[in-house]
Amino acid sequence: MNIGVIGCGYWGPNLIRNFGALDDVRIIGVSDRRAERLDFIKRQFPAIEIFTQDANVLLKHTDIDAIVIATPVSTHFSLGMDALQNGKHIFLEKPFTATTEQAEKLIEVADRKKLKIMVDHTFIYTGAVQSIKKLVDNGELGELYYFDSVRVNLGLFQHDVNVIWDLAPHDVSIMDYLLNRPPKAIAATGVAHFDNGIENIAYISTYYENNLLGHIHVNWLAPVKIRKTLLSGAKKMVVYDDMEPSEKVKIYDKGVDVHEDKEQIYNLLIQYRTGDMMAPQIDLTEALKKVSQEFIDAISEDRQSLTDGMAGYRVVQILEAANQSIRKNGYVVELN
Amino acid sequence: MNIGVIGCGYWGPNLIRNFGALDDVRIIGVSDRRAERLDFIKRQFPAIEIFTQDANVLLKHTDIDAIVIATPVSTHFSLGMDALQNGKHIFLEKPFTATTEQAEKLIEVADRKKLKIMVDHTFIYTGAVQSIKKLVDNGELGELYYFDSVRVNLGLFQHDVNVIWDLAPHDVSIMDYLLNRPPKAIAATGVAHFDNGIENIAYISTYYENNLLGHIHVNWLAPVKIRKTLLSGAKKMVVYDDMEPSEKVKIYDKGVDVHEDKEQIYNLLIQYRTGDMMAPQIDLTEALKKVSQEFIDAISEDRQSLTDGMAGYRVVQILEAANQSIRKNGYVVELN
Amino acid sequence: MNIGVIGCGYWGPNLIRNFGALDDVRIIGVSDRRAERLDFIKRQFPAIEIFTQDANVLLKHTDIDAIVIATPVSTHFSLGMDALQNGKHIFLEKPFTATTEQAEKLIEVADRKKLKIMVDHTFIYTGAVQSIKKLVDNGELGELYYFDSVRVNLGLFQHDVNVIWDLAPHDVSIMDYLLNRPPKAIAATGVAHFDNGIENIAYISTYYENNLLGHIHVNWLAPVKIRKTLLSGAKKMVVYDDMEPSEKVKIYDKGVDVHEDKEQIYNLLIQYRTGDMMAPQIDLTEALKKVSQEFIDAISEDRQSLTDGMAGYRVVQILEAANQSIRKNGYVVELN
Amino acid sequence: MNIGVIGCGYWGPNLIRNFGALDDVRIIGVSDRRAERLDFIKRQFPAIEIFTQDANVLLKHTDIDAIVIATPVSTHFSLGMDALQNGKHIFLEKPFTATTEQAEKLIEVADRKKLKIMVDHTFIYTGAVQSIKKLVDNGELGELYYFDSVRVNLGLFQHDVNVIWDLAPHDVSIMDYLLNRPPKAIAATGVAHFDNGIENIAYISTYYENNLLGHIHVNWLAPVKIRKTLLSGAKKMVVYDDMEPSEKVKIYDKGVDVHEDKEQIYNLLIQYRTGDMMAPQIDLTEALKKVSQEFIDAISEDRQSLTDGMAGYRVVQILEAANQSIRKNGYVVELN
Repeated sequence: MNIGVIGCGYWGPNLIRNFGALDDVRIIGVSDRRAERLDFIKRQFPAIEIFTQDANVLLKHTDIDAIVIATPVSTHFSLGMDALQNGKHIFLEKPFTATTEQAEKLIEVADRKKLKIMVDHTFIYTGAVQSIKKLVDNGELGELYYFDSVRVNLGLFQHDVNVIWDLAPHDVSIMDYLLNRPPKAIAATGVAHFDNGIENIAYISTYYENNLLGHIHVNWLAPVKIRKTLLSGAKKMVVYDDMEPSEKVKIYDKGVDVHEDKEQIYNLLIQYRTGDMMAPQIDLTEALKKVSQEFIDAISEDRQSLTDGMAGYRVVQILEAANQSIRKNGYVVELN
Repeated sequence: MNIGVIGCGYWGPNLIRNFGALDDVRIIGVSDRRAERLDFIKRQFPAIEIFTQDANVLLKHTDIDAIVIATPVSTHFSLGMDALQNGKHIFLEKPFTATTEQAEKLIEVADRKKLKIMVDHTFIYTGAVQSIKKLVDNGELGELYYFDSVRVNLGLFQHDVNVIWDLAPHDVSIMDYLLNRPPKAIAATGVAHFDNGIENIAYISTYYENNLLGHIHVNWLAPVKIRKTLLSGAKKMVVYDDMEPSEKVKIYDKGVDVHEDKEQIYNLLIQYRTGDMMAPQIDLTEALKKVSQEFIDAISEDRQSLTDGMAGYRVVQILEAANQSIRKNGYVVELN
Repeated sequence: MNIGVIGCGYWGPNLIRNFGALDDVRIIGVSDRRAERLDFIKRQFPAIEIFTQDANVLLKHTDIDAIVIATPVSTHFSLGMDALQNGKHIFLEKPFTATTEQAEKLIEVADRKKLKIMVDHTFIYTGAVQSIKKLVDNGELGELYYFDSVRVNLGLFQHDVNVIWDLAPHDVSIMDYLLNRPPKAIAATGVAHFDNGIENIAYISTYYENNLLGHIHVNWLAPVKIRKTLLSGAKKMVVYDDMEPSEKVKIYDKGVDVHEDKEQIYNLLIQYRTGDMMAPQIDLTEALKKVSQEFIDAISEDRQSLTDGMAGYRVVQILEAANQSIRKNGYVVELN
Repeated sequence: MNIGVIGCGYWGPNLIRNFGALDDVRIIGVSDRRAERLDFIKRQFPAIEIFTQDANVLLKHTDIDAIVIATPVSTHFSLGMDALQNGKHIFLEKPFTATTEQAEKLIEVADRKKLKIMVDHTFIYTGAVQSIKKLVDNGELGELYYFDSVRVNLGLFQHDVNVIWDLAPHDVSIMDYLLNRPPKAIAATGVAHFDNGIENIAYISTYYENNLLGHIHVNWLAPVKIRKTLLSGAKKMVVYDDMEPSEKVKIYDKGVDVHEDKEQIYNLLIQYRTGDMMAPQIDLTEALKKVSQEFIDAISEDRQSLTDGMAGYRVVQILEAANQSIRKNGYVVELN
């Protein structure tokens, strides 16, 4: 499998390192508009053949099977479409696209041309998220009540996208993966504290059937780094704290018991129940190693990857609706 | 000063202990509908003269100057009104009343009769909140950007009020005290996961002038106890973690620098700035000791207390609007 | 059962509250040399009959069955001996006595007179220590390798005893209870930083058969409060952190696998093994409630209590040896 | 400056990366006895010219000015001596040598030949240790009382050295740097739990003039990773927790006030004093970058480096004495 990488910014070198380390994968070339980034990559990965400022060199290269796109989201659609039109599988940084319309078009073309799309929802491939997914899927948590995620820090302010497009893809992709169902509606609040009009703090609520509630807090203006997710079910509750050096996932045998009160028939007796806590050993393999392997495997096995175009679409749909809600002052956006 | 205490449930004994320990204060009597609670109090405080299941005995007792009301919120208005009508000052557990209308009426009667109302917003009297208040008031934080508070645990489910009326009075009263300005609008999301229709998880957004944003997460269904507040300003940022045994308040010399980009005039350059962290020594006096002293002092000095009827009103106004917003599916409730 | 309490300082009121709350126990009287302490107790426990500055009133009172002694350790022997001579069971604050010789004499007299001695090794009765004891006793930890305990804070400096006699009784009693075997030898290091010659920091090493090692760090001069114990065995390892509000005990399924290396026969291959962590739910009953109940039960059932005179003796023996070692500059004191 | 690197195990690649990134430094060659390690390095650093299993190729290479030695400590002396004899400066991994005698000989030869020795005491170059050093040197901590360091984890068991030679060089070098005075005596306790006779847990006490006490706990058999150092002085106290992602250094304005008690003239009144805590912003530059720069600078400026041969000697002296003490069952080893 021969690949080309477009975009050598913050994340690009990590992708090059991981794809380059796979057996049977050869990185033929990389491109970036900035000569100094190409020089930087050249020093680190001298074995790569092509270093070019013109992405088209890679997009049209006949030896290249797949294109890895690690550029700003505003360019994902046109680069992705060009790659697909040239018969190449595509791997894109999160978020997939800037709009659901773009996502739909890419998926449609890929399907028609029997090409694969994969989106880099890295967290899905962490041992932590995988261990929680198992709990959800085997019913250990019971019926799910809510998903609450906080991802805040003093951030590198982006100039082109707001904090929702920057940070929330992580939480939304984890939420989509764990809950595995479509939200009915989205509402969001966000504020831009500086004159650039770009929201630097936002809260997103996602409504599901059966009173399942999702909530995400993303924030570039917090003095401390918090990455904490609560997932509560009728049987057990999970705290996933990504800042913990070990024991990132804690499973609490806690919950609520609902009894009928025989004397006061109109009243429910709700009592909480507490038990042991367990922190499972989790796989510490670098997630990006699994991400890159999954893309290659999905292509060679001719199957959709775990985070395919549709997964990318679902994340963009929530981000898009959240931004619409903010524009409309918190209005609840129904999804069909 | 002679006082009577109505309501000897969870919080009542703490009030009795603290008021009883004040110089020049005598607790003449206590009342509770439940005989077993009276027995419990009697064993602990044998010196109190009157133990009665009939609150009227205290409300009409001619030697009593002030009534402490620690009953469910649904009874605050009628007990408070009776006390005021009988010429007694009143001290009420939080929240002040079940509606803003009730709050207005109590304030109006108290003003007319020159009696004092004080609401037990206990956290306002903690060393932690007092130390943050100083930072805000002396301008050390700079212009305020947001207040974010999380108060979650596996809770004792209330049968009469939802999680907003139970837990949010703490956060709302702290927010009201620190920000010291009226919100323009309120929006809230809440879910009742059990058949009693009582919300056990809720998120409240409060909108202020100049893009100042407040957000509160209250939750009875969390496996861990979190009580963490972020307050960020243009100059410094505060983290108040009430679960820390010491160093509850941390002040971060962190922020954002906004520069004009000379080459790209349409673009702001926003960079974050980091410096030292400082955890001030805070007064560890039991807050309730100061609460009870403040009530007695306000009466004897004929002044409003720090958490008077108007403070109680402002908190109820936000709680009421949050509940309205939930009923209307997240609709933004404008306050005038 | 009628009891008398001698000593109403820091810990006395807690003992009075807990013994007083037991069914079938009546506190007839309390004594303290300081009139102001008696007044303080009188206000809190008005139902007690006798308040006296003269301990002999209680020691000789014919209605009293047992004496609770919560005075400085230097007085334990004479007060305890008087009580035993007057036919009364005795309960003593930790440490049991100031010397092993005193301990032996008290035990000898109690045995002869068929009276009970119990020492207030409170921590033994906590849910945390009980849950660890179960793990040790049922073999879940495997062969024990070491016990390491740190108990430091910015302390109330004692004027009569050093930090070993003040803080180490907690750790030594826990160690004695969990390891359940006699040490072969003791060595200790300690320093007095102030001119009173009283050690304010000390390290104690205890040597057992089979390379089991104990180590205790006690310190009155630390800026933070640490109370952390590691107990490692061949199969599992425990961390007991008493400063954690919940999850005080964590059991790690971690250890070391020893293989014979076939190629290099003289070499052992030692590899570590990691697995899940589990924090068992622990009984949160106030330990002192169980302590007081145990004393009463031991008397009425005519049996030794869990922390009887012999347990007190074993703790004093280690404290005494540690102090001897410090006097001899770290010399290893052999115990027989 | 041309350098050669001998030893490409765990730490070697980090040294190659950091020395290779320096301006005016060229890594001419690397050697390791294991061909697979050479292949690994070759893939990562293809620009290096010489890859050899024979260290002598580098030791005798006329273009090489300095040799970086990252091999097991047992080989440090002979490799270092060969390098010096061939006129090359030497940089050695910690610990410097296996004995003080070896250290003395290397220093003597280097001095005679006007060559530089530097030992990789990496922690000295961290922002954390540098910030504490400033506090000590400018007198902010006041007279020092004790240094207590804990460095435990579930470790990769070494086959050739015990836990003291493996982990304690970090703590001893930090202690030596911060306290900046020679210890009078050393005592240590250590246990080998496996049949290889290599201690896997050890406690080291170091005695200084004026009751200053040092204590180090190193342990390969702990279920959790702890790297925590307390340094207390008469005026302020420091906690350095290397496991904290931020705020690694906390300075407590706490201490002890000693008053003369006028009534009881023979008694000191010792009271503790508490104030604010401050966590200074610390330089987050990778320490090894500064380490490598310091070696090059010391050579070009013809000066001793911050962690020169003498610093290496002082660390080896304490490690050697600690091991002697263990062999003699805790005997206090006096240093002259």
